[in-house]
Amino acid sequence: MNHRIITISRQFGSGGRTIGKEVALKLGIPCYDHELIEMFAKESGFSEEYIKSSSEQTKRQGLLSSILADRTYDTHITEDFLWEAQKKVIMDVAKKGPCVIVGRCADFILENDFDCLSVYIHADKSSRAKRIVEVYGERKDTPEKRISDKDKARKAYYQKYTKRVWGNAEDFDISLDSHKLGFDTCIKIITELY
Amino acid sequence: MNHRIITISRQFGSGGRTIGKEVALKLGIPCYDHELIEMFAKESGFSEEYIKSSSEQTKRQGLLSSILADRTYDTHITEDFLWEAQKKVIMDVAKKGPCVIVGRCADFILENDFDCLSVYIHADKSSRAKRIVEVYGERKDTPEKRISDKDKARKAYYQKYTKRVWGNAEDFDISLDSHKLGFDTCIKIITELY
Repeated sequence: MNHRIITISRQFGSGGRTIGKEVALKLGIPCYDHELIEMFAKESGFSEEYIKSSSEQTKRQGLLSSILADRTYDTHITEDFLWEAQKKVIMDVAKKGPCVIVGRCADFILENDFDCLSVYIHADKSSRAKRIVEVYGERKDTPEKRISDKDKARKAYYQKYTKRVWGNAEDFDISLDSHKLGFDTCIKIITELY
Repeated sequence: MNHRIITISRQFGSGGRTIGKEVALKLGIPCYDHELIEMFAKESGFSEEYIKSSSEQTKRQGLLSSILADRTYDTHITEDFLWEAQKKVIMDVAKKGPCVIVGRCADFILENDFDCLSVYIHADKSSRAKRIVEVYGERKDTPEKRISDKDKARKAYYQKYTKRVWGNAEDFDISLDSHKLGFDTCIKIITELY
């Protein structure tokens, strides 16, 4: 049942997803990222859109926001149900064989049952702000605000389900500053560690 | 004035000092660790013993402990004076040329003025407990308690002078789990990054 799985946790705009995809390509193993959302939807019966927003409760926007503004007991049950579906999908994916899994607390979900290399990718706020504009374009909010909102949301979600503080070096085998070291160096280090 | 300096911050028992010394040896550059205490003593006029204990205020033992138990205004002034001496010595050492500096908030002190690679070495508590008994021998306190006390003291000291949370991945270019990855791998990664 043990395979060598690489989990990549990353700050928004740090390029962790790009790094994960490149590592998987170099190693000739699959990379799961957006694909997971579709799998969670199938497993749970919820829409992909709802699932995408579920990890970003602290800044949910629009209609869903107003409906769920006062978070009821039912909301928490739904979230916990989704968390269980997410755990199952990630465990199933890991059982299939070596792969890279980006985000979704996979580091925490798999750490006791699989031979994992857990990676955390981070970068300073100004380089992330620059990158999200390049990659995702301009939005109504400033890039700094978008980063701050995402950081808060990921932190809250991670803490809720793992009881850990998001971004604590101790919780990962290796943490890398993608801006300071450069994407190529990060990819090389992770690939060689595999 | 810019040189390539490697700063190593480390959890007690993680082997960060050993890793730093090996990296320096491989690169043929000096490694400053215990040597710094002697330099701080010369710079400040305080004894080496007092300086060693100054970063571990939260668990100071013996006579000094009882004298300084109710920490006076003077004590804080002394600590701040020592911090200034420490900053000066570390800046002077860095100006001399490429080197490895272990501990003493060198990552924070040098980050704006020197081309630094800042490294954080950590490991899980049980492997650190095993290692401190092997390296430093048995003591009255259990290894777990010794680790917990040192962790608290380093955290408090780091936070007081840097206003940062000790062990936050974001504050370092690279963080490595020395137990999971192994000392040789850590040495190889840091040496290659230089």
